Amino acid sequence: MTELVLTTYDWVPEFPRGFVRDIRAAWALEEAGLPYRVESTPFKDRAEEHFAHQPFGQVPWLTDGDLSIFESGAILMYLGERSEVLMPGDPKGRAGVMEWVFAALNSVEMATLPWFFIGMSPENKTGPGWTFIEGFLKVRLDRLEPVLAEREWLAGSFSIADILMADVLRTADRLDALADYPAARAYVARATGRPAFIKAYADQMAHFARED
Amino acid sequence: MTELVLTTYDWVPEFPRGFVRDIRAAWALEEAGLPYRVESTPFKDRAEEHFAHQPFGQVPWLTDGDLSIFESGAILMYLGERSEVLMPGDPKGRAGVMEWVFAALNSVEMATLPWFFIGMSPENKTGPGWTFIEGFLKVRLDRLEPVLAEREWLAGSFSIADILMADVLRTADRLDALADYPAARAYVARATGRPAFIKAYADQMAHFARED
Repeated sequence: MTELVLTTYDWVPEFPRGFVRDIRAAWALEEAGLPYRVESTPFKDRAEEHFAHQPFGQVPWLTDGDLSIFESGAILMYLGERSEVLMPGDPKGRAGVMEWVFAALNSVEMATLPWFFIGMSPENKTGPGWTFIEGFLKVRLDRLEPVLAEREWLAGSFSIADILMADVLRTADRLDALADYPAARAYVARATGRPAFIKAYADQMAHFARED
Repeated sequence: MTELVLTTYDWVPEFPRGFVRDIRAAWALEEAGLPYRVESTPFKDRAEEHFAHQPFGQVPWLTDGDLSIFESGAILMYLGERSEVLMPGDPKGRAGVMEWVFAALNSVEMATLPWFFIGMSPENKTGPGWTFIEGFLKVRLDRLEPVLAEREWLAGSFSIADILMADVLRTADRLDALADYPAARAYVARATGRPAFIKAYADQMAHFARED
């Protein structure tokens, strides 16, 4: 078996710490008990080699021998195929996980991420762009809430879909996105209470503090 | 082999025609030569059964016997696993497709979709929300352009990643998002010139016109 190496920045400012997307991969790796090593790439001067691994100049990417893969969603699918703890192997079980993986990233995060970055500055909460994104977020969370009220996890048992959805929601909830959504908030608490998340979170905090 | 059934709305207003997301699935099905049937669900009164298949009340969903799957990204992954025309079967080839599938939906469409819906009304192009989303779109397209200038298709040969990326880009280009990105525009022309896209597009236009 080849060695899994997860690459993230060497340092980030305080605000994003605990929320940089390598945590999604580290959380999955911890859940599955797959051994891995974390490497760093400069945050401040992003070299050509960075863009060769991640064309948008972001993190993380994962290498597995001579294979290199970027996008947290793709990395989690890749890991999901290596561990039944992360994703069932049968077509029906896989389909159930995949639909929620994409729902987390293409239906929910598509609303939460712009909402978060615009809303981070209270003076930005004005104008038609804000009106649109607020409405977009509400439509998505209104629909997600009854689903989360009925289920412990999105696709039967805990899976990569829950890692992605919980990470998307907890980030948005830094600005109280879930104030009116108790089931979503309980779901985030359930997910982030897992030992694998707690370890991945502590590791990321320690990693970014090292270069302070 | 069970029958593949793709469900979309029975009707939509004229503006979204040719751009409703069932076209992504139909395009993939046509590329792979997989037989399928299209069914309709009401656009105007969305029933409980609709939400049972698609919790956000959108389309499409795909059924394959007793399996039902939503999210265009997940449907394309599901079909990709059924045809080497859509996604290679080896881990390295799959990884190369998956990273671009997620890049299309979680890095590029996350910018293009809010940009499109806000920018659709010219009077909305003002305020901090618009400033954010315009900058977000530019960052993504600036990075994508050199990639598309160098490759015919995103992951070696044509794949589901190209269906998703081309669909994301052609939608944004209805509002001239690609005016300064000639390689992206050439890529969209290359992708949408394929017989499978042309058939899927004509079929969708005819489907939605039927109930006028």
